[in-house]
Amino acid sequence: LVSVLSSALIVYRLPWTWKCSKLLMKCIHAGLNTVAMILAIVSVVAAFEYHNARNIPNMYSLHSWIGLTAVIFYCLQLFLGFAVFLLPFAPLRLRAALMPIHVYSGLTIFATVIATALMGITEKLIFALQNPAYSASPPEAIFVNCLGLLLIIFGALILWMASRPHWKRPPEENAKVLLPAGGTSEGTEAESTMTDGSNADRSDLRINSEAARKQNLKLDEAGQRSTM
Amino acid sequence: LVSVLSSALIVYRLPWTWKCSKLLMKCIHAGLNTVAMILAIVSVVAAFEYHNARNIPNMYSLHSWIGLTAVIFYCLQLFLGFAVFLLPFAPLRLRAALMPIHVYSGLTIFATVIATALMGITEKLIFALQNPAYSASPPEAIFVNCLGLLLIIFGALILWMASRPHWKRPPEENAKVLLPAGGTSEGTEAESTMTDGSNADRSDLRINSEAARKQNLKLDEAGQRSTM
Repeated sequence: LVSVLSSALIVYRLPWTWKCSKLLMKCIHAGLNTVAMILAIVSVVAAFEYHNARNIPNMYSLHSWIGLTAVIFYCLQLFLGFAVFLLPFAPLRLRAALMPIHVYSGLTIFATVIATALMGITEKLIFALQNPAYSASPPEAIFVNCLGLLLIIFGALILWMASRPHWKRPPEENAKVLLPAGGTSEGTEAESTMTDGSNADRSDLRINSEAARKQNLKLDEAGQRSTM
Repeated sequence: LVSVLSSALIVYRLPWTWKCSKLLMKCIHAGLNTVAMILAIVSVVAAFEYHNARNIPNMYSLHSWIGLTAVIFYCLQLFLGFAVFLLPFAPLRLRAALMPIHVYSGLTIFATVIATALMGITEKLIFALQNPAYSASPPEAIFVNCLGLLLIIFGALILWMASRPHWKRPPEENAKVLLPAGGTSEGTEAESTMTDGSNADRSDLRINSEAARKQNLKLDEAGQRSTM
C-alpha cells in the first residue's frame, strides 16, 4: 500500500516521463492512487473481520482512529482530484486555486499513513510478542523495529523527492497552458497567433522544456533566497 | 516540547514580525529551538530514569529508536544551523545551498517527533490501562485518543503555515542580501553604488517589503502553475 501510494506521489517527478503527455501522466497518477485506495479499503475490512473473528472490539485504538480518518480523507482527495483535475469541466482558475491544497493534502495524508503504520507496528509488537516479550528484544522485535526505521527513511526520501523544485515536471508551452482543456480547433489558432510559427516550435519541444526546467530552478532559487 | 518546537518553526511566518530585524528573528528562532532541545534531552533522561527505577529494559521499542534518532538529528540540525546561519562566517553561497536542506530537515524532524509522540501514546495506553483495558474504551482511552487526533491536526496546521509562500518573510533590500554579513564600512559603499540614494531607500523599507511580498507571491504562482 505505502509503495503504491508513494509511486503515485512521485510519478510526475521522474524526468524520463516529462516527454509523455500530461493526460497520460494524470491517468497513471489517478490509476495508482485508485489501486492504493482499493488496497486501503481491503486492509480496513480485513482488520474488522480479524477483530470480529477473535472477539476484539473495533475502533478503540488511536491507530484505528487516525487510520480511518486518513482513509476517509484519502477517498475525498481522490474523488475531488478526479472531478477537478482529470475531468475536463473545471475552469483553470479553480484548478490553480485547488492545486496547492491538493498537493498539501496528498503529502499530509501520506505522512499520516506512515504515522498510522508505525502505531500499528507498535501495537502489533506489544500484543503478538509475549514469550519472550517485546521488552526482552527478541530478534523478531529488532527486525520489525528496523522495518519501522526504514519506513521513516523511505517516507522522508519520498517527501524530499516530492518537494524538490528541480524535479518538478516543466510546464507545457505557454499557449497550451492558457487554453481550456479539449479546445483543439480554436487551440491551434490561438497558439499560432502567440508563437508565430507553431511547427518550428513543436520540434523545439525538448529544448523548450529544458529551458522551462531551468526557469523553474531560477524561480525557486529566488524563493529560497528570500527565506534567508 | 511540541508547542515550543512548532512556535520555533513558524516564527518567521508571523506578518507582525516582518518589521523586526532579521538578526533578532534568527535569535528568537535559535533560542526557541534551544529551549525545545533542552526539554527533549530532559524528557529522554527522564524516560531512562523511569525505566531504570522500574527495572524495564531501555531502548527496546520502535518509539524509543525513532525518538532517539529524532533527538540526535535535532541536535545536529541545531548546531549546524547555529554555525552556518547565525554565526557570521559562512559565505552566502553556502547559506543558499544549505537553506533548502535546513528547511526540509526541520519540517521532517517535526513530523517525526509527532509520529514518535503518537507511538508513545499508543504504548502508554496499552501498558497503563489494565482494568478496564484499553480495548474496553474507558473514558481515559477516549480522552487520550482525542489528544492524539488533536496532535495530528495541530501538526498539519503548523506544516500548512510553514509551507505557504505568502506567509514567507519578504526578502530584505537586494543590496543587503548581496552583502556578506558584518561588512558595514564596505557595505554602505556597495549599497550606495547599487541604489543611488540609500537614504531615500531606507525610508521606503516598508513599501519595499510589501512589494517584495507581492513578488514572492508572483514567483510562487508561477511555480504552482507549472505543477498543473
